[in-house]
Amino acid sequence: MDKLAVLAFSGGLDTSYCAAWLLEQGWRVHAITVNTGGFDADELAKIEARARALGVAEFRVIDARKKLFDQTLRYLIFANALRGEVYPLCVSCEREVQAETCATYARSIGAQAIVHGSTGAGNDQVRFDVALRVLAPGIQILTPIREQALSRAASTEYLAARGFEVPAKTTAYSVNRGLWGATIGGGETHRSDGVLPEEAYVLTAARAAWPKQPESVRIDFSQGVPMALDGRTLEPVTLIEELNQRGGLHGVGRGVHVGDTIIGIKGRVAFEAPAATTLIAAHRELEKLVLSRQQSFWKQTLGELYASLIHEAHFCEPLCTDIEAFLSSTQRRVTGRVHLQLWQGQATVLGATSPFSLMNPELAKYGEQSSLWSGAEAAGFSKLYGTQELLWQRAGEAARKAEETTHAVAS
Amino acid sequence: MDKLAVLAFSGGLDTSYCAAWLLEQGWRVHAITVNTGGFDADELAKIEARARALGVAEFRVIDARKKLFDQTLRYLIFANALRGEVYPLCVSCEREVQAETCATYARSIGAQAIVHGSTGAGNDQVRFDVALRVLAPGIQILTPIREQALSRAASTEYLAARGFEVPAKTTAYSVNRGLWGATIGGGETHRSDGVLPEEAYVLTAARAAWPKQPESVRIDFSQGVPMALDGRTLEPVTLIEELNQRGGLHGVGRGVHVGDTIIGIKGRVAFEAPAATTLIAAHRELEKLVLSRQQSFWKQTLGELYASLIHEAHFCEPLCTDIEAFLSSTQRRVTGRVHLQLWQGQATVLGATSPFSLMNPELAKYGEQSSLWSGAEAAGFSKLYGTQELLWQRAGEAARKAEETTHAVAS
Amino acid sequence: MDKLAVLAFSGGLDTSYCAAWLLEQGWRVHAITVNTGGFDADELAKIEARARALGVAEFRVIDARKKLFDQTLRYLIFANALRGEVYPLCVSCEREVQAETCATYARSIGAQAIVHGSTGAGNDQVRFDVALRVLAPGIQILTPIREQALSRAASTEYLAARGFEVPAKTTAYSVNRGLWGATIGGGETHRSDGVLPEEAYVLTAARAAWPKQPESVRIDFSQGVPMALDGRTLEPVTLIEELNQRGGLHGVGRGVHVGDTIIGIKGRVAFEAPAATTLIAAHRELEKLVLSRQQSFWKQTLGELYASLIHEAHFCEPLCTDIEAFLSSTQRRVTGRVHLQLWQGQATVLGATSPFSLMNPELAKYGEQSSLWSGAEAAGFSKLYGTQELLWQRAGEAARKAEETTHAVAS
Amino acid sequence: MDKLAVLAFSGGLDTSYCAAWLLEQGWRVHAITVNTGGFDADELAKIEARARALGVAEFRVIDARKKLFDQTLRYLIFANALRGEVYPLCVSCEREVQAETCATYARSIGAQAIVHGSTGAGNDQVRFDVALRVLAPGIQILTPIREQALSRAASTEYLAARGFEVPAKTTAYSVNRGLWGATIGGGETHRSDGVLPEEAYVLTAARAAWPKQPESVRIDFSQGVPMALDGRTLEPVTLIEELNQRGGLHGVGRGVHVGDTIIGIKGRVAFEAPAATTLIAAHRELEKLVLSRQQSFWKQTLGELYASLIHEAHFCEPLCTDIEAFLSSTQRRVTGRVHLQLWQGQATVLGATSPFSLMNPELAKYGEQSSLWSGAEAAGFSKLYGTQELLWQRAGEAARKAEETTHAVAS
Repeated sequence: MDKLAVLAFSGGLDTSYCAAWLLEQGWRVHAITVNTGGFDADELAKIEARARALGVAEFRVIDARKKLFDQTLRYLIFANALRGEVYPLCVSCEREVQAETCATYARSIGAQAIVHGSTGAGNDQVRFDVALRVLAPGIQILTPIREQALSRAASTEYLAARGFEVPAKTTAYSVNRGLWGATIGGGETHRSDGVLPEEAYVLTAARAAWPKQPESVRIDFSQGVPMALDGRTLEPVTLIEELNQRGGLHGVGRGVHVGDTIIGIKGRVAFEAPAATTLIAAHRELEKLVLSRQQSFWKQTLGELYASLIHEAHFCEPLCTDIEAFLSSTQRRVTGRVHLQLWQGQATVLGATSPFSLMNPELAKYGEQSSLWSGAEAAGFSKLYGTQELLWQRAGEAARKAEETTHAVAS
Repeated sequence: MDKLAVLAFSGGLDTSYCAAWLLEQGWRVHAITVNTGGFDADELAKIEARARALGVAEFRVIDARKKLFDQTLRYLIFANALRGEVYPLCVSCEREVQAETCATYARSIGAQAIVHGSTGAGNDQVRFDVALRVLAPGIQILTPIREQALSRAASTEYLAARGFEVPAKTTAYSVNRGLWGATIGGGETHRSDGVLPEEAYVLTAARAAWPKQPESVRIDFSQGVPMALDGRTLEPVTLIEELNQRGGLHGVGRGVHVGDTIIGIKGRVAFEAPAATTLIAAHRELEKLVLSRQQSFWKQTLGELYASLIHEAHFCEPLCTDIEAFLSSTQRRVTGRVHLQLWQGQATVLGATSPFSLMNPELAKYGEQSSLWSGAEAAGFSKLYGTQELLWQRAGEAARKAEETTHAVAS
Repeated sequence: MDKLAVLAFSGGLDTSYCAAWLLEQGWRVHAITVNTGGFDADELAKIEARARALGVAEFRVIDARKKLFDQTLRYLIFANALRGEVYPLCVSCEREVQAETCATYARSIGAQAIVHGSTGAGNDQVRFDVALRVLAPGIQILTPIREQALSRAASTEYLAARGFEVPAKTTAYSVNRGLWGATIGGGETHRSDGVLPEEAYVLTAARAAWPKQPESVRIDFSQGVPMALDGRTLEPVTLIEELNQRGGLHGVGRGVHVGDTIIGIKGRVAFEAPAATTLIAAHRELEKLVLSRQQSFWKQTLGELYASLIHEAHFCEPLCTDIEAFLSSTQRRVTGRVHLQLWQGQATVLGATSPFSLMNPELAKYGEQSSLWSGAEAAGFSKLYGTQELLWQRAGEAARKAEETTHAVAS
Repeated sequence: MDKLAVLAFSGGLDTSYCAAWLLEQGWRVHAITVNTGGFDADELAKIEARARALGVAEFRVIDARKKLFDQTLRYLIFANALRGEVYPLCVSCEREVQAETCATYARSIGAQAIVHGSTGAGNDQVRFDVALRVLAPGIQILTPIREQALSRAASTEYLAARGFEVPAKTTAYSVNRGLWGATIGGGETHRSDGVLPEEAYVLTAARAAWPKQPESVRIDFSQGVPMALDGRTLEPVTLIEELNQRGGLHGVGRGVHVGDTIIGIKGRVAFEAPAATTLIAAHRELEKLVLSRQQSFWKQTLGELYASLIHEAHFCEPLCTDIEAFLSSTQRRVTGRVHLQLWQGQATVLGATSPFSLMNPELAKYGEQSSLWSGAEAAGFSKLYGTQELLWQRAGEAARKAEETTHAVAS
């Protein structure tokens, strides 16, 4: 019987090795490239050519950008999700959609195995393994690179020895690029100190080329979802792509993040995420106008938790669905308009308006007497507000005096 | 008998009114200016002159900058405390120290009343009232402005009618300035949209004057406390003042924040906090190197909570002490050096090092095979890691099939 | 013009005073008794008679038991809400529904005022005030007892002087009774030590009368909602009433709780809640079978928070709606059957089953080798599981050695 | 060279197999029994005899009861730690101390290996592995049972074939017994429904033998630590042992718990924990008197978290130390006396007193007018307390009207 494997294929060294090795083991291979925003038509054509050259039985590109937004990015915006206050989870959100797409495809063609090119070092192996095991029950997971503990040199040699083209490495850095941004590892990121050179960046213009003048941008949100750019209604995917392009020109969204992997080691990574950075800044400002303080506090904690779950491969954890229900509920009134300025590497919020704004100068103006209450009422509030602290202080005094009395009597 | 009142005196219109009014009611008045970093010698001399002119029996300046750091700022750094991710609590931390200083002074001289100039609109009335009621038991709290619901025009007229100098208002904005930064209210901040003009800022240079070249700065922390600047060991207060000055030249630490008052209305405020912004960015980066991921997550939540408690006048809430114990414990290893760059309104972290760094390339390098485990062990980990998600999926399948069977049988 | 007031009327001393006083001030009064499960037909007849005797223009009983379940009790079960681990929020949940019912009625008849009999001491004043201000905008809130700081003696005298019947106080204790249980205050509860005598209880049988044999009960839940008792499908309200009755015979659900009021003082209260206690124990057990550990942990925290919000009068806080969305999502699979035993004052869970149970002996049996993984895979998991603790330990060692070296060199 | 192994020895089948097998592989074996409260002198003598018979080079009993209290139980009391609201973590707390004791011993004698008898199924393998890897760096961990996936039948045969005595299994249940209670697995606990027979219990008397009369007990705490029983000052370990004995006679502390293992499967276990159950109930009541509501809420969440960390083998996670600092701070005032009654399987709190009690009838009595504030002040408080809910409601109204206007204009 024919052994049929679905290979998550990126056209890089590792997955090229996987293709060649699988074919040599007698597998029929369907290579799948799931596009989550990291490839243009040119690149996809090159990836296909490479797959065909390696001898796969079938090659498919599946566009998963809309699914990526609907299933994950939407909630990352709701959550204002930034790891370590800076990094917009560019990578982890893609892996879920890629794994799910592979699982669906593999089930549809009755494949016996799904193959991914992860090493045994990082997060991606866990993300693929967990998602595939849940979403493709009964289908074997193969990870030749991890299983064989292959070095890049060994893979290169293997491919060269069989006459296969070895994908060129054009830079000292390894880049992961997608709709929600790009991450860049290698060189300086292997230490905790030191910054990347300009040429390492792929989405943002070099500093020397940044425009001298600021550029205004206006983003409309409807129930937390970005809907329009400068008044033009756009599909979220298109809006993000346009914002990546415009922000990129100004160097918006660059950063370096030190974080924890699932297994527990520390990793440092540079990133570029013009759209994600801009959208989250805008969304956060709008929320400040329309959410209650209690909502803000708990949304912050649950948003942080949600980001952890996604980062740590718990896409299928039922708690994610519960938090999504919570986050969606908080977005009922996150409708309005935010003005920002893109300039000198920064997306700066200038202001926001909303029909649901709780900042209502007709009722109460910050720092000025309010029509909602009198001075005497405020004094009453203020007096009772600290009752428990007062009781705590008095109890402490009473206990201290009681002890002094005891001591005095005893001595 | 003589009625003796301690007046928290800033030299502004409201507290000048209070002084005059108290004297007219037959109180002997001690005016106290608690310096939490907002005044230079010149200003203090003017404040004293005004107090004397109004006829107070005694005037004192009490320098509370060190107390402010030791009691509150230290923990705000430990907590990386930024309200709404941006605003470093410039004001609330000062109020606690001011109230405490007034309470101590009032008790030492046997005063019958403590007087503050708060209106009935904002947070400060609650902060003073709660702290004074706890810290100065048995001493009456008087708030003439709130009680009489006085407008600025009315106070001005009252003072003028009695021949007292009315403090000049030099700008359309009202400013609160201290060691941890300045806040600016008025004009554009009464709306949710629109930004302040350059001339409204008091701590940071105008954009046109920002240096063209970046300035490097190196900050050493010891157990979470900033100890040295560019290698020079400094007292925390001096370090902050120097950093305010250097960052201010580059426009570092400007921002606008929309937040919630204690009473529950929304307020928008501009701020300038060069040192606070820089120190928190540096401290956060160092923590990423040395804290475990579990520490980071929970420190974030408890830090947010701590900032809320301070903002909302709960200085005396015993939970604050408990969180301080937690935060102090987390700082055991927050010792190391951070490099930053001040430039174009931004303090950007370039890197950090620590003897306690958990980023140990000798043991495990992010993205590369590790000496700590084999590929097979990683696969084992990865397989078991998602066990609960797998059981959840299988339970769902089983329940679905059982129901189908029931339906099939029933039909 | 006629002044029309809606009075939340319980027939007790305080609201009887309110009726008499309002009429004397020239108000037309509609007295409303909102039945949240605390009254039987006999009592309602007496309340009506009293209202009529006092001279109200209109008297209405509105049955709000179903609304109480649908709007609040449902979520208190989802949350397993017990204050201080013991007390099922018998009172606070009723106040919201009572206030809402009064507000709706008052708006429907165009009343100018809503009147409640709360004193200035407890939680109920805040619960009514907050809910009424939000739900009945533009309608005045009157609280004669609080405003006049009336003692019970003074009210009694006032009513007697006008020839009105004074409701008899049959006991030294004050009782609040409703669908979710009864609370009992007075006497021993004014101290932190000491228990109530048998005769103070109103819902549960005296200990001497408890049956000698246990009684089994079987409760079916569907998505978190109790649906059937011993196999009989029942409306939730009926199910709760029956369970109060059956549990009451065995003394189930008695307790004493020390808690915090909204204003911040401590209060101690005895309670009887046979149905609430039994349902929450059963529901909690079923959840343990079907929820993931992450769901359990966070549901616990958010459930605690939800109970706080309800207790502290934040019914209208939008965060409540968000948490309700979260809780509802967690209940997707909380479907199954729980066996309990009512006996000697206790409802003890004997076991639970669910089609969604994650306890699947076919896949993995606790304490025995599993078909889901091998010993080697478990060892791999176990090895990587503690990676961060290991890095922390090694970093500490390294820092210690570096310091020793420095000292050795320096000395 | 001699290979030296330290074996964590309980005298049961699994560790007896380990001893025999190690000796056969040429290891010199030191067998260590760490007594965390589960053994009396008789049992220890039998364990020693078995170890000697198997041929170990050295046998030691190390009494770790005090260490267990000081290092873990103290904090479990501070945290009121009950998994799933019922189960007092009887087992996990012992494993840490056992692993630490073995690690210290192994380092002191220069052993090359530490051996534990865990299977690949449960929590204990992870607890031992993680702790040993951190605390005994460089020492190999051997787990023969897990590595060889041995069944009980196979171990029995192996031992019998070599002429070693096979430890008798006297019951169908497997029991783990220690200072903090006993757990009982097997039979009915393999299902989610069904209860254990009386004879399965080991610490508590059979129901038929429970005394007919209640027994009073008075526990004094000092800063959260239980210090005296009925007025007699006792060491915590002695106090717990006495309370286990007294509570056991009344059947106090029995229960069944469904929980999650570290790996993610569900497990059900019966337990008996008379002292733990009684102490936590008492401690919780005392805390209600002396902690602020904010402390109570967050202590609950962090206590739950602490219990999770201990349960899930994260003893060495630095966050544990941070939470311990927090918990210790909260206990500053948890000093006082609690009265309870042991009766019919229950430890019921009757009351508590503390010099630090916040329940101060002189200042404010629950349900009655207070000397701390007037009715008007309470009304002011109550009015402002709901400001944000009011603004939310008004904003919703305003947005609704604005939309209606737009629609009306548009149509």
